[in-house]
Amino acid sequence: MKLYTYYRSQASFRVRIALNLKGIAREDSFLHLEKGDQFDAAYRAINPQMVVPTLIDGDVKLFQSLAILEYLDEAYPEPPLLPADPQARAWVRGLALINVADSHPLIVPRVREYLEYEFKLDEPTRIKWCQHWHTAELTALEAHLKDAATGRYCHGDAITLADICLASQAAGAKFFSVDTAPFLNFTRIANSLSTIDAFARAHPLKQPGAPAS
Amino acid sequence: MKLYTYYRSQASFRVRIALNLKGIAREDSFLHLEKGDQFDAAYRAINPQMVVPTLIDGDVKLFQSLAILEYLDEAYPEPPLLPADPQARAWVRGLALINVADSHPLIVPRVREYLEYEFKLDEPTRIKWCQHWHTAELTALEAHLKDAATGRYCHGDAITLADICLASQAAGAKFFSVDTAPFLNFTRIANSLSTIDAFARAHPLKQPGAPAS
Repeated sequence: MKLYTYYRSQASFRVRIALNLKGIAREDSFLHLEKGDQFDAAYRAINPQMVVPTLIDGDVKLFQSLAILEYLDEAYPEPPLLPADPQARAWVRGLALINVADSHPLIVPRVREYLEYEFKLDEPTRIKWCQHWHTAELTALEAHLKDAATGRYCHGDAITLADICLASQAAGAKFFSVDTAPFLNFTRIANSLSTIDAFARAHPLKQPGAPAS
Repeated sequence: MKLYTYYRSQASFRVRIALNLKGIAREDSFLHLEKGDQFDAAYRAINPQMVVPTLIDGDVKLFQSLAILEYLDEAYPEPPLLPADPQARAWVRGLALINVADSHPLIVPRVREYLEYEFKLDEPTRIKWCQHWHTAELTALEAHLKDAATGRYCHGDAITLADICLASQAAGAKFFSVDTAPFLNFTRIANSLSTIDAFARAHPLKQPGAPAS
């Protein structure tokens, strides 16, 4: 498989984790979003939305990280990333979507650039924006994680889509110096996931293009 | 089933369409997000994120519209909202997520309120923001809809999750006076969907609380 990716992208991180968990080998093609690599005509032909990740599996072209995770789980079922029961699957997908569809879209490069170049907002104001939406998500996620369904991970003791998204949220929170300490379940699960090889190898700061510290 | 909903919410619209398509009866509980009904303690206990929709199916409590749509498709499989093949499912989910996880999160009430009260931006500037992200999504979606997979609807001639999300995007675009005419496939599919009873009855402007015109 071939993965178009950016070191700092939460969405790319999610896909790297899933591929690692399922033991699927890949070749990475690194784009630097803050330098505008995604606007090149060659990449635009692959991903007209000009975002990462894109995953190529043979002649199948996949976009949108959550759609990619669901595809990987259907096409390469072991180990599963979703529980079997529809109610539990909905819970896991709901937790994942708090990250994927609520907070993360608000802090991606194109949005931060709009705040900078269209709204002329300074860096502290832009960072406050990112921190605000991170904290809103962490608050919502933590409220859900107080449920009895939570175990060692977001749903019981098996790793699911929700944990992959939680790990990407944790990496994002660190980039924007968000205080995650008040969110006890979140922090406990994030720390536990970070010790797992499939997560550790996929981490943004372990990718080409990442800063040394 | 019981659905907590708001007339104007794109996410609630999606769930109403799916319930109608599957012929599932429901009782609606209407919240007015712009008046702050979602912050009441009673609703907060049901949905700690204080957003709509929430769907109650017996003792199952469901949140996040896309997780709800996937649940409905698993628990009430007829008619299906996803094709059978993993590649086609990924395509449909990818199209849906362009709406659910990219543009829609940027124009919801809580974000518009942040622009107004924190950034002190006037109404024309806020509307321009909403139009910008709508148009970015429409551009990306239209590029994908030029694919041979597109038929009468987003994927062939059967209604899928992607069409439900496209219809919600069309309703949102109208609220913000976005020019959708240049997006030919989008407009053709949106017009076609609007004539289907399950979509028409679910439309935001047909719900209690909606303005008369």
